[in-house]
Amino acid sequence: MRFFGRTRYSIGELARLRQIVRPSGHTMILPYDQFIEHDNRHIEAESDAGNPHYICELAQEGGYNAVAIHYGLAKRYWTTLMGRIPLLLKINGKTSIPSGEPLSVLTGSVEDAVRMGAVAVGYTMYYGSSRQDEDIPQLAKVRQECDRYGMPLVVWAYPRGSAVDAKGGKDCSYMVESAARMATEMGASVIKINLPKAAKPDFFENSGVPEYYRKLEKELQALPAKEQLSERAKRAVAAAQGTPVLFSGGEQINDDDLIENTKACIDAGCFGFIFGRNMWKRKKEDALKLTRMFQEMIDKS
Amino acid sequence: MRFFGRTRYSIGELARLRQIVRPSGHTMILPYDQFIEHDNRHIEAESDAGNPHYICELAQEGGYNAVAIHYGLAKRYWTTLMGRIPLLLKINGKTSIPSGEPLSVLTGSVEDAVRMGAVAVGYTMYYGSSRQDEDIPQLAKVRQECDRYGMPLVVWAYPRGSAVDAKGGKDCSYMVESAARMATEMGASVIKINLPKAAKPDFFENSGVPEYYRKLEKELQALPAKEQLSERAKRAVAAAQGTPVLFSGGEQINDDDLIENTKACIDAGCFGFIFGRNMWKRKKEDALKLTRMFQEMIDKS
Amino acid sequence: MRFFGRTRYSIGELARLRQIVRPSGHTMILPYDQFIEHDNRHIEAESDAGNPHYICELAQEGGYNAVAIHYGLAKRYWTTLMGRIPLLLKINGKTSIPSGEPLSVLTGSVEDAVRMGAVAVGYTMYYGSSRQDEDIPQLAKVRQECDRYGMPLVVWAYPRGSAVDAKGGKDCSYMVESAARMATEMGASVIKINLPKAAKPDFFENSGVPEYYRKLEKELQALPAKEQLSERAKRAVAAAQGTPVLFSGGEQINDDDLIENTKACIDAGCFGFIFGRNMWKRKKEDALKLTRMFQEMIDKS
Amino acid sequence: MRFFGRTRYSIGELARLRQIVRPSGHTMILPYDQFIEHDNRHIEAESDAGNPHYICELAQEGGYNAVAIHYGLAKRYWTTLMGRIPLLLKINGKTSIPSGEPLSVLTGSVEDAVRMGAVAVGYTMYYGSSRQDEDIPQLAKVRQECDRYGMPLVVWAYPRGSAVDAKGGKDCSYMVESAARMATEMGASVIKINLPKAAKPDFFENSGVPEYYRKLEKELQALPAKEQLSERAKRAVAAAQGTPVLFSGGEQINDDDLIENTKACIDAGCFGFIFGRNMWKRKKEDALKLTRMFQEMIDKS
Amino acid sequence: MRFFGRTRYSIGELARLRQIVRPSGHTMILPYDQFIEHDNRHIEAESDAGNPHYICELAQEGGYNAVAIHYGLAKRYWTTLMGRIPLLLKINGKTSIPSGEPLSVLTGSVEDAVRMGAVAVGYTMYYGSSRQDEDIPQLAKVRQECDRYGMPLVVWAYPRGSAVDAKGGKDCSYMVESAARMATEMGASVIKINLPKAAKPDFFENSGVPEYYRKLEKELQALPAKEQLSERAKRAVAAAQGTPVLFSGGEQINDDDLIENTKACIDAGCFGFIFGRNMWKRKKEDALKLTRMFQEMIDKS
Repeated sequence: MRFFGRTRYSIGELARLRQIVRPSGHTMILPYDQFIEHDNRHIEAESDAGNPHYICELAQEGGYNAVAIHYGLAKRYWTTLMGRIPLLLKINGKTSIPSGEPLSVLTGSVEDAVRMGAVAVGYTMYYGSSRQDEDIPQLAKVRQECDRYGMPLVVWAYPRGSAVDAKGGKDCSYMVESAARMATEMGASVIKINLPKAAKPDFFENSGVPEYYRKLEKELQALPAKEQLSERAKRAVAAAQGTPVLFSGGEQINDDDLIENTKACIDAGCFGFIFGRNMWKRKKEDALKLTRMFQEMIDKS
Repeated sequence: MRFFGRTRYSIGELARLRQIVRPSGHTMILPYDQFIEHDNRHIEAESDAGNPHYICELAQEGGYNAVAIHYGLAKRYWTTLMGRIPLLLKINGKTSIPSGEPLSVLTGSVEDAVRMGAVAVGYTMYYGSSRQDEDIPQLAKVRQECDRYGMPLVVWAYPRGSAVDAKGGKDCSYMVESAARMATEMGASVIKINLPKAAKPDFFENSGVPEYYRKLEKELQALPAKEQLSERAKRAVAAAQGTPVLFSGGEQINDDDLIENTKACIDAGCFGFIFGRNMWKRKKEDALKLTRMFQEMIDKS
Repeated sequence: MRFFGRTRYSIGELARLRQIVRPSGHTMILPYDQFIEHDNRHIEAESDAGNPHYICELAQEGGYNAVAIHYGLAKRYWTTLMGRIPLLLKINGKTSIPSGEPLSVLTGSVEDAVRMGAVAVGYTMYYGSSRQDEDIPQLAKVRQECDRYGMPLVVWAYPRGSAVDAKGGKDCSYMVESAARMATEMGASVIKINLPKAAKPDFFENSGVPEYYRKLEKELQALPAKEQLSERAKRAVAAAQGTPVLFSGGEQINDDDLIENTKACIDAGCFGFIFGRNMWKRKKEDALKLTRMFQEMIDKS
Repeated sequence: MRFFGRTRYSIGELARLRQIVRPSGHTMILPYDQFIEHDNRHIEAESDAGNPHYICELAQEGGYNAVAIHYGLAKRYWTTLMGRIPLLLKINGKTSIPSGEPLSVLTGSVEDAVRMGAVAVGYTMYYGSSRQDEDIPQLAKVRQECDRYGMPLVVWAYPRGSAVDAKGGKDCSYMVESAARMATEMGASVIKINLPKAAKPDFFENSGVPEYYRKLEKELQALPAKEQLSERAKRAVAAAQGTPVLFSGGEQINDDDLIENTKACIDAGCFGFIFGRNMWKRKKEDALKLTRMFQEMIDKS
Repeated sequence: MRFFGRTRYSIGELARLRQIVRPSGHTMILPYDQFIEHDNRHIEAESDAGNPHYICELAQEGGYNAVAIHYGLAKRYWTTLMGRIPLLLKINGKTSIPSGEPLSVLTGSVEDAVRMGAVAVGYTMYYGSSRQDEDIPQLAKVRQECDRYGMPLVVWAYPRGSAVDAKGGKDCSYMVESAARMATEMGASVIKINLPKAAKPDFFENSGVPEYYRKLEKELQALPAKEQLSERAKRAVAAAQGTPVLFSGGEQINDDDLIENTKACIDAGCFGFIFGRNMWKRKKEDALKLTRMFQEMIDKS
């Protein structure tokens, strides 16, 4: 539980989170909420990725520490695992279909998670969206329910929306760091972020970007690629101020990049990984091989 | 408790507020909600300002009478102080990212504050924003919860929005005085305002500005700088009609100006100060020195 | 209670309203919600008008039958009167700062009024505003709460908004009569209106104005000033169909006009007056003198 | 309101209690809950005592400051008074039919009282009954509702039950004083007691009676009748420790005794009287004459 | 806060309990619930003991760390202290009048305590009473409310009832130790007990007394008086297993015995004292002198 000693946790959080912590203190989680987020497109895969039974199988054979899914899949498929793989119940979501400023709305509740014996709930916060005035109180209420039941709250801290696009984009360090911090302010038990990248070129022209981050971004972009990656990862973990950080894999990328990224995240002191498409869109044997490799990497750190 | 004898307070308010009152009757509070309000930019500091543990340390060493923070920081960091520094739980907030008419939405609740043993809740009211039709009832509900639990309500009375910009701007006396009054009308236990400044030049052309304030502003601008400052501070305190007033420090400014402003506020009869960036962005030793100086100034008055 | 015999009232309404009824059956109420409605401008006065303690003093010395104020002032200042002057708790309001179609939102609740021992709640309905779709259900809910607790509901029936401006303006007989009727339809216990005046010149060109009122307006405008005033007052009272009507004083006007208006209202059979600015912006001795004069006038009728 | 300055009252209590306070600061209340407490026997009267309409008439003609009745009579009869005589809603009661340890159970609620515009609720507490374990929490809940709505709570503080009988009886000073004190401890706004009398002879033999009260009782019994009466009344008022005390008339007694008792109570500093059977069982003209006499006596003190 | 480091406390408990802890880590509390528990007999005192205003005075002048009273006294009298002396709200009680197996029933609620800004609630648990089947769930519910609001729970752990009388009596070590342990098991934040004494003679004959305690009692009784006292105190504190223990003074006793007992309790490592009758039944000057002496004794330990 070495990642949970930097700040205070309730006993309910600790008693539940222990179940997803590897002996090394790290974790590796299989997320599978993408069929809400990205419509049905991911059935184009080298595996039986569209079938939730397959995901359960993969989670079990891969020795994942949890699966992150919505209520319907939890009730109909995960239940067949008889609790062998811990459940991280994702309780909000948004489809890919309408455009406009994003808001991720409730698909389930903390009480659903309690009833199913989940070890945590997952919540997507769209930092910087102009609909944050609906998002923030919704998250606050979920957090209050989590407090009431001693349920850990994993916040997907995702910068999004037109104002974010105008201030460097959803993946730049300025936005990812601010989102990670916001999740800590809101009371997240664990924070999930994407590995930050360079800001969009118009970043330097937006008068709303603070001087500090303009200067920083210039310095980061001047670094060699590998160092830059590493520096951005470290800063993002630091921005969470001690709240354990999970890195997501994001879109499916080539193996070398994925390994490179993973190393940078581990060196940055992350709590663990939550890799979805990079796992379940591959052939099962490849996915299992890669899983084992990452587990070894992370357990050594 | 000399600032709480001008109007009526419930016993719950008094029993809690006594904990933040210095023997001199004044108070000095350390606010740290800026990492929500201004994104992560303030990690650019001469101190470890981004780290909530540092803030707790500063509050304790500086002998602050309370820290004003959001739920996440209260739960994870402030708890390590074991109740030694009183908690003012800020329960609404707004990020700096999207623009548009501002509304500060709930990040926590009065019951959260009760459960943590907080001595007050803090609420930001954006006076004059076109979203006040959401803000006012939200504040009224928070106030009702405060009444139910005997919890003091500290209102950040901030003029904001395009109509405010067109009528002299968020810092002019007309706006600050009207916002302070509004907070009293809504039932604030304590009011936090910024020190008023001269109105923007187009103030005199806006037909919506009352004759009284046009005339007043001309007279104020005709005064020597120091007198003007003093007069604006006095008027702002008077506008609250006996509800104790806290002045905030606002942006980090140079020491001479900060001291000048502080004197004017003390002479105006304020209850105390709530200085954040002007404290935790400095080197710790400087912050502690300045803190002590202000405490001495205020205790003498 | 002669004004409450024309239609049915619940016993809770009667038991509370009796406290604001003079032996003559009339009433005279001191309203003081203008520091929300018109910002802080009214501190420009010949008296200590900005100070709620002064208002309490004036109400007591003047023998007013109630004061109409918002929650903050009730809790902090009115309480010092120990219940000697009945409280009419105003539970919605709107600041003067942002423009746009008006909606008066909740600043308090019927339960607040019950807990404080108020004799009635006051609610501002903006008849004809394009935001009436929010206003009407909000009023309906307040009325339901009033029913639950036996609390009288005094409706400020104010025509407002761009459609009203285009159909004669907020003060014309067509609008005031329609608003008074609307308040009766919504279940008001007592209705507060402004004394109607001539319609704006473009009234006759707006095709949305009913033929009846075009013809009427022409006839009214053809009458001598005094008769016209009297006729408009009578029609407004009649429009309420037996619900007792209070006339407000509106902006501060000269004494002769105020007395003329008052006579017209009394002759029209109004329940009483609710005079604010015309009282508390004057010197105290003048206000008290005028108060006594109106009380005598009304008690004789 | 001179009787309400010795201890703290909420504004809701004060705003309501003012309605039952005579200009002299005293009160005189007509209770009519005896047709529950004593079955239908009281129709044997020289007046139309069994008819609630008669009681309303008597209250109005006699200028009583309130009537104390149960819900059914309030709803069906008192309402015809249109709020002219304040209502003290009695919300618990007990019939005379079954014997055994007494408990007075709820016949109405505080919310009923609020809805009807009552100025207070009345509650009978049977001090010392072996069913106090049901009585005390029931009273505590009523008191909490009273707090929520600002409703004054008048406690009939009545010693009762076999343990009371064994310790001097329901009317002895030891019991009445202890019951008055208990009502203060429970948060009564006003306390109603019977004028204490000598303890029953076996008082001195019960080992459970405290030494202090044995000694006291001996001293009191040694006093001349008039002095004894006066001393017992004073002690009972003092036992309430500043909570205003109402004396009830109890059973119908002869005029001389009633006047004697009344004088003793007034001298003892009581808040007022609550005389039922001694009024409404007489001929109306006698009742009115006596009422006026007592009002004059009390107003002079 | 040295007494609160042996086991875990919630932040709400700590933030509230800090207010009753002296710089030395100890506490000294003035209890005044005896006018419910022992009827009005304690007005026989060398001071104005029956007057709650006197108790407030004594608490303030004596520098007590809290007063322990029921709701009525808190609302009407303690409020005049404006929060200067922390409130420990006693929320259950029982009168002295009926005999039989004891149960202390609710006179108030945890929410009452929250609203008044109390620092803790007090609850009397009658360990061993045959009515514990009502007592235990009632205490469990109070504790749940305490958890919800972060309110500390001080349990008066009192052995009582016929079974207790038959097994050594309410003051013997066997019973007091068992009751202290029971309070820890139920979740008490602080435990109040009486200093144990020798068991009643028939202790050794009751076959229900465990062998261990029969043997122990014999050994204790064989010790010299002072050592025995000291040993019993130590064992009682130890039985609470780290939950801080308050000793009550019980009946008024002579000064030498009181000092002797106090020393034994301090040596045993108690958190503090809660002395009522031994203080407020004395002359004020004597009470203050004794208070200061005990404060010095306890602060040195």
